Amino acid sequence: MSSTGNSRKARYWGWGYEDIVYDRATTEHALKALVQEFRLSDLPTKTTAIDIGQHAVPESKLQRDFIDRWSNKGLSVDKAQRVIHTVGKSYRDLVRIRAGKIDRYPDGVLFLQDERDLQFLFEDASLFGITLIPFGGGSGVVGGTECVGPSDKPILVISLRKLNKLLSLDEISRTATFQPGILGPELEAALHERGYTLGHFPQSFEFSTLGGWVATRSAGQNSTKYGRIDKLVVSLKAQTPRGAMETRAVPASAAGPSLKEIWVGSEGIYGILTEITVKIAPLPQTQRFVGAFFNDFGVGVHAVRKMIQAGLHPSILRLSDPTETALFRKMQPMSGWKEAAFSLWLRVKKAGSAPSLLLLTTEGNREESLRQESLIRESLQKNGAAVLSKGLSEKIGMKWLQNRFALPYLRDDFMDHSFFIDTLETAALWSGLERLHGRMGAGFQEREKKTGEKVTVGCHLSHAYADGASLYFTLIAVQRKNEELRQWDEIKKLATDTIMENGGTVSHHHGVGYDHRPWMKQEKTELGIQVLRQIKSQLDPDRLLNPEKTI
Amino acid sequence: MSSTGNSRKARYWGWGYEDIVYDRATTEHALKALVQEFRLSDLPTKTTAIDIGQHAVPESKLQRDFIDRWSNKGLSVDKAQRVIHTVGKSYRDLVRIRAGKIDRYPDGVLFLQDERDLQFLFEDASLFGITLIPFGGGSGVVGGTECVGPSDKPILVISLRKLNKLLSLDEISRTATFQPGILGPELEAALHERGYTLGHFPQSFEFSTLGGWVATRSAGQNSTKYGRIDKLVVSLKAQTPRGAMETRAVPASAAGPSLKEIWVGSEGIYGILTEITVKIAPLPQTQRFVGAFFNDFGVGVHAVRKMIQAGLHPSILRLSDPTETALFRKMQPMSGWKEAAFSLWLRVKKAGSAPSLLLLTTEGNREESLRQESLIRESLQKNGAAVLSKGLSEKIGMKWLQNRFALPYLRDDFMDHSFFIDTLETAALWSGLERLHGRMGAGFQEREKKTGEKVTVGCHLSHAYADGASLYFTLIAVQRKNEELRQWDEIKKLATDTIMENGGTVSHHHGVGYDHRPWMKQEKTELGIQVLRQIKSQLDPDRLLNPEKTI
Repeated sequence: MSSTGNSRKARYWGWGYEDIVYDRATTEHALKALVQEFRLSDLPTKTTAIDIGQHAVPESKLQRDFIDRWSNKGLSVDKAQRVIHTVGKSYRDLVRIRAGKIDRYPDGVLFLQDERDLQFLFEDASLFGITLIPFGGGSGVVGGTECVGPSDKPILVISLRKLNKLLSLDEISRTATFQPGILGPELEAALHERGYTLGHFPQSFEFSTLGGWVATRSAGQNSTKYGRIDKLVVSLKAQTPRGAMETRAVPASAAGPSLKEIWVGSEGIYGILTEITVKIAPLPQTQRFVGAFFNDFGVGVHAVRKMIQAGLHPSILRLSDPTETALFRKMQPMSGWKEAAFSLWLRVKKAGSAPSLLLLTTEGNREESLRQESLIRESLQKNGAAVLSKGLSEKIGMKWLQNRFALPYLRDDFMDHSFFIDTLETAALWSGLERLHGRMGAGFQEREKKTGEKVTVGCHLSHAYADGASLYFTLIAVQRKNEELRQWDEIKKLATDTIMENGGTVSHHHGVGYDHRPWMKQEKTELGIQVLRQIKSQLDPDRLLNPEKTI
Repeated sequence: MSSTGNSRKARYWGWGYEDIVYDRATTEHALKALVQEFRLSDLPTKTTAIDIGQHAVPESKLQRDFIDRWSNKGLSVDKAQRVIHTVGKSYRDLVRIRAGKIDRYPDGVLFLQDERDLQFLFEDASLFGITLIPFGGGSGVVGGTECVGPSDKPILVISLRKLNKLLSLDEISRTATFQPGILGPELEAALHERGYTLGHFPQSFEFSTLGGWVATRSAGQNSTKYGRIDKLVVSLKAQTPRGAMETRAVPASAAGPSLKEIWVGSEGIYGILTEITVKIAPLPQTQRFVGAFFNDFGVGVHAVRKMIQAGLHPSILRLSDPTETALFRKMQPMSGWKEAAFSLWLRVKKAGSAPSLLLLTTEGNREESLRQESLIRESLQKNGAAVLSKGLSEKIGMKWLQNRFALPYLRDDFMDHSFFIDTLETAALWSGLERLHGRMGAGFQEREKKTGEKVTVGCHLSHAYADGASLYFTLIAVQRKNEELRQWDEIKKLATDTIMENGGTVSHHHGVGYDHRPWMKQEKTELGIQVLRQIKSQLDPDRLLNPEKTI
């Protein structure tokens, strides 16, 4: 990943900043690998997104009186802002925004200045008949900020980005209270200054907010150690059209159902989070990598399970299946003799010709991190792993670490060259994990036989718990020109149906949004959905907030 | 604790079994200590509960047709059963039931035979106008099964005790699925057979059920290691008057708010739990005790915090404040020279004349348990503890362990001799813990100055988390004859107000029930209560289930 200048202009049509380009050598290698994978005669010609000015953004439907009341409180009806805030960053979003095929743009963006404006805003939204869509970093990949809602009502996006302060830090209790709109790097910088970390690093880290993490019930790459966001939230405050709600800042309680849990995963349908208190941890003194190969994904899953159930606690943890491991290897520009030496090593270690790569870290204080590393190496070896040397583990690990937030940039390159690429993730109990993984691959192979469309399915186990783990799937295909959205629909449906039919959850960390909504009855039961709707009718009776999302 | 025979008849008016008597020497010593503590001239004469047959139980108001329909499905209108199921086991409950001063008895008890009967039961309850009160082990201490509700409707208690099976055990995922009515010992026996434990040991363990633990969001004595029940529940099924709800059995999910969390702590107001899947752990190979003294409660709290925040994980953990430590010592029949030697030891170790006792265990596999023990001893020593030798730690620890489920029997002896004794518990962030503790003691001292009534307030820190801990208070006084309930009201109000005004939660593991309801608005905010009520109106629109509880 390299920066070509000082400008920090965002790619409105893709990931991150315009001046960031994914490592060129890897990109070229990766594209070549895709040409091979899909047996194309040549790399498809590069296409680029239309210019932001070419978007046919209609006049704002926001009422003149409303605009007058809010223009000095952060309201913008600027067309570029309206384009930028019209979708998130899913493949489906980018296909549409690159081509300017957007059904609906928001009619304005309110950069909220002050939490205290919210109650007035709800009143005005009710009075003027305006739909409100809360917006954090805008990095969502499940349509959580999709501009949908009653067609006769203007849509106003509420950007929380100005509410980005650290409000307090309690070193005794190791908790910190933030406003919701703080981005990952801002939050970590504020904590680092005092010697702490939240330990929450989703791939979107640079472009997502604490409020977004909580609202989507997210997990980060280090969550196997620090815990998902639902474990990190101590308490929160929210403003709803019916007033404020606040949960008590206590470590645990038996005082009835946890209302905090109604907000974690609420995706802006109930109200807007305004203060969030989280657990913090001292900055780790060290981070150590362990890399290993297995001759079979199932053996790897078994080894990871044994390690976690023995009480060992890696921080980052990813076990790639053979398809993902092979793709990963193909994408690395590696000299011929290195590749040969490596293949030989794998043979000697009996890791087979289609191995699964495990990469993990241990972190914390020096002593504990070393001890975990040594116990983990021992546990893996006992369970069939070909464990890499410390040096090589470190090398592969650092490479991954440096790139860990950059992979979505590579997606833009893939889309430039007309490849379909989507990711989706789930979690299941250990006893059902391999079946689910196997069914996903088999399902797309069966589909290829029927339709002739090849979809390459790579997967890694990304978070592990005592009772199960998360699986993260990457699906790649050649784009069907002019049928990009239909193609996505078909692939998404097969993948998600496979998850639901095999005991998985519809999402382990991306959330529900607009895209996963069709599966929510299966996930929550009919009665469960009714309960969630009932809560909505209590907190947002006029249905101002984020309609048609989640339920 | 000793058993005087084979009969296992329950003490309907007190704790546990009739044939169990708390160790006589300790009881005598303890009563003497109380006589001293309250400067009484003599031990008040022993009073006993009225015979169960002396209760003036009115005729059942259950309709004849209803009785006919359900009598072959487990319905009993037997008067003794109705007395047994009329209250729980709180001080307030026992004061009333011992004296036969019960406002309302249930009109029948249905020993539910089959989960599938529940939908018919809800229909009939609606049809006949019957109030339903779910009942697990009946050991609750916050009035969760209090017979209240519309005065014109009969009350039917639903005992879940017949639904007590282990349904399945998944050794790969380390989960087990149970019916809700299984008692602690039954559950642990079923798991032990396969080499596992749930690790959930509330003081009520012998007389409480898994369903009760979940419904009251309970914590157990080993929860610092295994986690509270909310962490142990993987998924659950419930029957409500509006049908079944089931949560997905996955290790984690980002699919919207967690509906599981609406059931954990629901206390029977939304429906009846019928299947619960929990995480299980291998039986520990060993359990090791560490005992220590501090010359100040605050120093002890600091040392416990440092230990937990360093990532050490004891299993049982209790740090008694000086009052509780002194009571504990006074209650132990100890020879004069032993007591003298011990006082000397405390002086040498600079633990002062009013020390705080810490007792903890480490458990798990042999190696890890030893390692934790050694790290914990080191950490405590560094933070001002006078750590007891392994032998003495073991001796004190084993004594406590043998008695750990028996203390409530001693309460019966106290009540026999006209002492007031109640316990209540909370949790708070570390930064507010000592203030809360201090305010509780001070509040009752101020009250004593005003009213002349001495209330002795002992306390221990009972569960520790990275961000805070639980405090468990024991309040003892001399009973005000014929004003027992008013006295309880006054003491309970002062204690709970003190908790709420100092950042605590109204309950850390006893639940809400009838007794804590007045503080729930403060706990959950007005809007939070409305949300919980809205859920109720969705799942139980006819308000059949457990009225006037929690919200």
